[in-house]
Amino acid sequence: MANPRKPKDRFHAVIPAGGVGSRLWPLSRASAPKFLHDLTGSGQTLLQDTWDRIKPLATASRTMIVTGEAHEQAVMTQIPELDPKNLVIEASPKDSTVAIALAAAILAKREPDVIIGAFAADHVITDSKAFQDAVNQAIELAAHDRIVVIGITPTEPSVGFGYIKSGDPIKMAGAPSALEVEKFVEKPKFERAKKYVESGKYLWNAGMFIAPAALLLRQLAKSEPELHAAILELAAAWDTDKKDATIAKLWPGLKKVAIDYSIAEPAAEAGLVGLIPGKFSWHDVGDFAAIAELQSQGRKNNLAVLGAARVLSDDSSGILVSETNRMIAIIGLEDVIIVDTPDALLVTNKANAQKVKALVDSLKATGHDEIL
Amino acid sequence: MANPRKPKDRFHAVIPAGGVGSRLWPLSRASAPKFLHDLTGSGQTLLQDTWDRIKPLATASRTMIVTGEAHEQAVMTQIPELDPKNLVIEASPKDSTVAIALAAAILAKREPDVIIGAFAADHVITDSKAFQDAVNQAIELAAHDRIVVIGITPTEPSVGFGYIKSGDPIKMAGAPSALEVEKFVEKPKFERAKKYVESGKYLWNAGMFIAPAALLLRQLAKSEPELHAAILELAAAWDTDKKDATIAKLWPGLKKVAIDYSIAEPAAEAGLVGLIPGKFSWHDVGDFAAIAELQSQGRKNNLAVLGAARVLSDDSSGILVSETNRMIAIIGLEDVIIVDTPDALLVTNKANAQKVKALVDSLKATGHDEIL
Repeated sequence: MANPRKPKDRFHAVIPAGGVGSRLWPLSRASAPKFLHDLTGSGQTLLQDTWDRIKPLATASRTMIVTGEAHEQAVMTQIPELDPKNLVIEASPKDSTVAIALAAAILAKREPDVIIGAFAADHVITDSKAFQDAVNQAIELAAHDRIVVIGITPTEPSVGFGYIKSGDPIKMAGAPSALEVEKFVEKPKFERAKKYVESGKYLWNAGMFIAPAALLLRQLAKSEPELHAAILELAAAWDTDKKDATIAKLWPGLKKVAIDYSIAEPAAEAGLVGLIPGKFSWHDVGDFAAIAELQSQGRKNNLAVLGAARVLSDDSSGILVSETNRMIAIIGLEDVIIVDTPDALLVTNKANAQKVKALVDSLKATGHDEIL
Repeated sequence: MANPRKPKDRFHAVIPAGGVGSRLWPLSRASAPKFLHDLTGSGQTLLQDTWDRIKPLATASRTMIVTGEAHEQAVMTQIPELDPKNLVIEASPKDSTVAIALAAAILAKREPDVIIGAFAADHVITDSKAFQDAVNQAIELAAHDRIVVIGITPTEPSVGFGYIKSGDPIKMAGAPSALEVEKFVEKPKFERAKKYVESGKYLWNAGMFIAPAALLLRQLAKSEPELHAAILELAAAWDTDKKDATIAKLWPGLKKVAIDYSIAEPAAEAGLVGLIPGKFSWHDVGDFAAIAELQSQGRKNNLAVLGAARVLSDDSSGILVSETNRMIAIIGLEDVIIVDTPDALLVTNKANAQKVKALVDSLKATGHDEIL
């Protein structure tokens, strides 16, 4: 029997705000991860930008944020509109399945026919209208009992993202762009990524899932029954005085698994997944090279500056991120990356931007936690 | 009539400690120029290294330092052995003729047959024995009424130094290496510098002059009679209670001229200059590339570190100079130059090291004196 409520009225957004962003050290720290920073020069943090992009779709009162204990205060300060009951604090990081499925279970307990949409807190989308159009189509499609993923048309053969292979058009009123999903594929090697892009069939998986909460949870029950049971028990206790005790009992044992493995891939095999191609520009700003690219918008010989530094540079290109007010002089460097914070300085270049993660790992291994 | 005193007993060293060292910004500042820094990792400043190198030649009580008002305190702190009457404070910078000729005139007033030797406070000499041997020969030669210059055998066709063209051997007991000087030549272009070096006849002019003070002053009287008169008047008042009044009267009008033009070149034309080739390694550490070269001693893939920074660098080369105790991470950069001070940061590379001066000039032009 069709649900009498309009799909749009059933929608509730979820913003998982987790992940340290090691490749953005020393800007992004365990205590102040990527989503709490302004990486675009917009004057707002990525989390605030995400909130503003989603609010017109879901309303402020129907948007939930899932984050870690360490960021509770920062999130509440940055998003004063957030309803406290829509702030889900994770006792420790448990990967994307727990973050999204727990939010789905809590919301489904409050409102059984809810359609949730999960959107990372630390991505950059520059065309909000096209984004909202895609999400609106995804909601319509989800209302027909689909787990819907928004795929991004690749602009290059990236090896940093998973891909979604699209199938035939679904042809549904309210979701004219909707396609079947043949399968999800993991991050490819470059040659394979090139073939994917040339085929025109593959889109980037940006981790945006829209689905009825009940359907998501049914799928989880099939693939991860123990995790599903624990999440339902947590959700049942969440809005009660048993919350803390239940967290204490169950949280440490929750399995860490990415939602792609636990839900998206098995659901795709079962023919339950639909795809809306996103016709907007999307960036996951995974490293400083990506930020530099985003800032320079392809212009050569351009030094992008984020922050309040006084900068002297005649002919350098790349990016300077400053959290100090020092005078910074940069002479004759190409594609340089300089990140100047009160207690740590990073100097590298675009070609080496990905190596920042290994450096952070080595800092961790050598016990320099105070700087991470 | 030959002077009955041994030449060595007549010797008095003079260390002109001036010059900001713009190419070493932001380490070297107007308030803390090059000579007040440890640029070699020796644990001492260049001034202290110079003092220690000269003391065995002249003794501590016969070494004079000429510097600016702003550095009086720092010099006295760094060189506690310095006899206060051997500290000459310049009211304002007046180039090398005033610095050296005034010292000569003050010392000649105290001790008419004094032989002075002038040695810059900010050069690096790694073989003190060979240096001292050259100076000892220069003193013997100077005692035969010569203005003696110590020339450096070039290691490359540098365009950053003036050159001295050597002539025939002088053949004198006590100065076996002594050569006549044909002429001084200004900083050449690269092709000419190459010919100079290939000829084996040309040495670098490192600005080290040894001469009887009276001879120096006679030469100055010929080429710059007004400046000579003013300097004699200053020297006559120096150790008296008329010192301040005489400085106030004469200092502003003193002509700025390099000693090469006022004394060395005309004296060479008059056949009064002798040359001792210096068989020691000498560096004027004019820019950060020179410091990096000095530190790495030609080793590739080596990042030299001066200062107390905690540094993470797997594969970078170049130099890091740190006056902070921040964590500094450098990834994948070749010949990089990073100078990290509390209020300013410089990032460039060896190829652009010379451009630091232009940058400092532009800071000056735009009124950023607080950072110079």
